[in-house]
Amino acid sequence: MIQSESNVQIKELIKLQKNARERKKKKLFVAEGMKLTKEAAFHGKLKKIYIAQDVYEHRERELDDFLAKQDYEVVDTKIFRQAAQTVTPQGMLALVEVPEYSVDTLLCDPKRSFLLLDDLRDPGNLGTIMRTAEGAGMSGVILSRESVDLFNPKVVRATMGAIFRVPFYYADDLIEVIERLKAKQIPVYGTMMQGSEVYDALDYTNGAAIVIGNEANGISEKVTAHLTKGVRIPMDGSLESLNAAVAAAILMYETARQKRTKSD
Amino acid sequence: MIQSESNVQIKELIKLQKNARERKKKKLFVAEGMKLTKEAAFHGKLKKIYIAQDVYEHRERELDDFLAKQDYEVVDTKIFRQAAQTVTPQGMLALVEVPEYSVDTLLCDPKRSFLLLDDLRDPGNLGTIMRTAEGAGMSGVILSRESVDLFNPKVVRATMGAIFRVPFYYADDLIEVIERLKAKQIPVYGTMMQGSEVYDALDYTNGAAIVIGNEANGISEKVTAHLTKGVRIPMDGSLESLNAAVAAAILMYETARQKRTKSD
Repeated sequence: MIQSESNVQIKELIKLQKNARERKKKKLFVAEGMKLTKEAAFHGKLKKIYIAQDVYEHRERELDDFLAKQDYEVVDTKIFRQAAQTVTPQGMLALVEVPEYSVDTLLCDPKRSFLLLDDLRDPGNLGTIMRTAEGAGMSGVILSRESVDLFNPKVVRATMGAIFRVPFYYADDLIEVIERLKAKQIPVYGTMMQGSEVYDALDYTNGAAIVIGNEANGISEKVTAHLTKGVRIPMDGSLESLNAAVAAAILMYETARQKRTKSD
Repeated sequence: MIQSESNVQIKELIKLQKNARERKKKKLFVAEGMKLTKEAAFHGKLKKIYIAQDVYEHRERELDDFLAKQDYEVVDTKIFRQAAQTVTPQGMLALVEVPEYSVDTLLCDPKRSFLLLDDLRDPGNLGTIMRTAEGAGMSGVILSRESVDLFNPKVVRATMGAIFRVPFYYADDLIEVIERLKAKQIPVYGTMMQGSEVYDALDYTNGAAIVIGNEANGISEKVTAHLTKGVRIPMDGSLESLNAAVAAAILMYETARQKRTKSD
């Protein structure tokens, strides 16, 4: 049992939660709670489980059976709370390998429905977007290098497990990806206030990529120059914009709706 | 100029930000930043402005012109930071009257598009929902009494001003409101995993109310018993649900899309 806060494993858990660079270097991240831990194990990405002593001592048969197949360590309850970094820790932390996807495979997905994020910064938005992308049946999510890190604990939590199930790729050059999509006859539509097309007037059924921009500044000028078209979501009232995760959801579910209605 | 943290006005600003009961008792709330303050003034709800000394001293003509017509007080910069309760205070706090709407008037709105929230708890979700409700042109939002307080600073911030523009009503009895809507031939659809109808197969163009439930538990059993129908948003993958604000957005924008397409 781990009983000291200066234990190297505890220090590493904290570092991995706080520091994106550490996550990138080690290709590891921390997931919290039983659900995400099981999901990590199911996907073959689980490295080790850390479990709080109080939770371990009151464990039921189901948890015992699960732990029997895993590498785990019990942590003193007080030390665990320090390692968990949340207000209401769930008693289980998992050390997980970052999934990796090939951009070539991702771009060949037969569903041909992509979401591109140009400098998205809010962790809650990114988590919600991954969750919605799974629900809407997207091929995957492609993020510009400056976008928020997917393995930030807030993002991981908000994905509700979609982080293990939605392919993603951080692009050093988003424009290169846009050009590759266009070469595959996949139009690339950017959501913007001044978009020339209303979002539901376009046909997404043969494949489409949707670009969502930064929360404050929208899609960058250099990306805008490479878009097939700008699309707008009509807004009543005097709003300047919708929330980025909401705009993404409306477009992704319009894609799903069109595909479903066409195949009916 | 206010120079003491024990100033009664500063104490009241902090209390109003922290405490929903205080807001209800005084029928006041605190909005932050120039944009929301101007919006409050535009809607005749602004009671008083508190401005940080450093911002006041570097004010431009535009701010001077605005302040000339308002009741305001300059606050020592350090004291202001304590009062603002945020990591990056914007230098302006506004004491604002809580808008009040009559439920009778709200239910008679000719757009006949309502969103009902049954025990929604997350401030970020509520703020995003209000913002989306404005964009989608909803008549208004009706909340069960247990739902999170609209004038919680996190909600106010996330609404991006929609809090002044979208009518709302906290219902002691949500079922009574549902029955009133149904008596007006407005169907009441609840979003749920097991809904009998796919959301886009329904006609919202003659009016409809959409119910969104609690983030963890969905729509309560007692409310479910009074629904016209349950609707589901199809989900790929192995998600249990979508984020509440995303589900609300998909339904509200389906309503807007149908109305727009019908009138074309």
